[in-house]
Amino acid sequence: MKIEVIENVMKYNKDQADKNRKLFNGNNLLVLNLLSSPGSGKTSLILETIKRLMDKKNIGVIEGDISSTCDAEKIGKLTANIIQINTGGSCHLNASMIEQAVSKLKIKSLDLLIIENVGNLICPSGFDLGEDYKIVMSSVSEGDDKPVKYPPVFVKSDLVILNKMDLLKVSDFDEVFFENKVRELNTRSDIIKLSCKTGSGMEKWIEWVLDRCKKYNNR
Amino acid sequence: MKIEVIENVMKYNKDQADKNRKLFNGNNLLVLNLLSSPGSGKTSLILETIKRLMDKKNIGVIEGDISSTCDAEKIGKLTANIIQINTGGSCHLNASMIEQAVSKLKIKSLDLLIIENVGNLICPSGFDLGEDYKIVMSSVSEGDDKPVKYPPVFVKSDLVILNKMDLLKVSDFDEVFFENKVRELNTRSDIIKLSCKTGSGMEKWIEWVLDRCKKYNNR
Repeated sequence: MKIEVIENVMKYNKDQADKNRKLFNGNNLLVLNLLSSPGSGKTSLILETIKRLMDKKNIGVIEGDISSTCDAEKIGKLTANIIQINTGGSCHLNASMIEQAVSKLKIKSLDLLIIENVGNLICPSGFDLGEDYKIVMSSVSEGDDKPVKYPPVFVKSDLVILNKMDLLKVSDFDEVFFENKVRELNTRSDIIKLSCKTGSGMEKWIEWVLDRCKKYNNR
Repeated sequence: MKIEVIENVMKYNKDQADKNRKLFNGNNLLVLNLLSSPGSGKTSLILETIKRLMDKKNIGVIEGDISSTCDAEKIGKLTANIIQINTGGSCHLNASMIEQAVSKLKIKSLDLLIIENVGNLICPSGFDLGEDYKIVMSSVSEGDDKPVKYPPVFVKSDLVILNKMDLLKVSDFDEVFFENKVRELNTRSDIIKLSCKTGSGMEKWIEWVLDRCKKYNNR
């Protein structure tokens, strides 16, 4: 009985995600769904990405938080294409929330839409939002065992970003262990190591985004 | 209809939590429920606590993870009183899981039971496990805005631990901002700042635990 309810919820979400995807595709929009623990650096990555691409691409952001607008305010200093979703306690974004948010964005003018999911390494990975790529971000200060302890999000993501590489020198993070554990779960995804703080590695991320823009902006 | 289902689940959990609490109280056991994001240092805190108290107190640990036993293995080197719960995907522990785990521990011999919840700053805060105290851990590397972005867990916790104080010198974490934001949500809880890595501040935490053991072990 309970399982039936969950299936209905997931089926409803999948249908809405497919509608979102159709809308995104019809507008030649690349859509990224960014997932991580609280404090891994999702907002910092978005800020640094906008700074580097604002002359080349029109970027929109949907900011997901259980409450508050503090991240959206930071991003709002760089772009007007920003919508905050406050989930009111819910631990993940779903496709219906994205539908509502997108209706308030001028998506015809956008090349790239970045969705910053609620900070949670577990629940958001189960909800398709209609994105083209799921990206999981982990950070050096969280430790090298995250793929071992939270496998589903690493299995489902199309790219793994390892942030806060500037802290490597003051930590016992084992890069080889981390990479091996990611590889055990997921052989298709690149691993990009960077530091939003120092900028190191950011060029690889920007290249990854621009490569995909080429494809998705010209469908 | 959906709300009714959720109420039933929460009512069932509360009833089981009350049973757990009765069992814990009857055995003069202090029970702590430790909550945080992935990688904040819950396991490190438990390891350092056992090392400092193993000659004075019998400590049991229930380790919650969606999968894996890597944290339990680390703790198992210091105590035999360790049970792993693998939630199989669920993003939080519930009171029934704790009932099952406790049935495998020799709780009559224990003074202190520490429950390490699944790494998630959102969902676990809604589930009473029958514990005496909820403790939320945040870390310097996650940033000072966690109380703003994830208020419920800070509202519901009886103690706030700020870990990784050794990273303060390489971060822009604002201690006053963090403390003020915690205080806006919660005036009753202490804030203990420490570093599991260097040991600084650990004496305050150990004192906090021993003070509560005095009360709960002699009911």
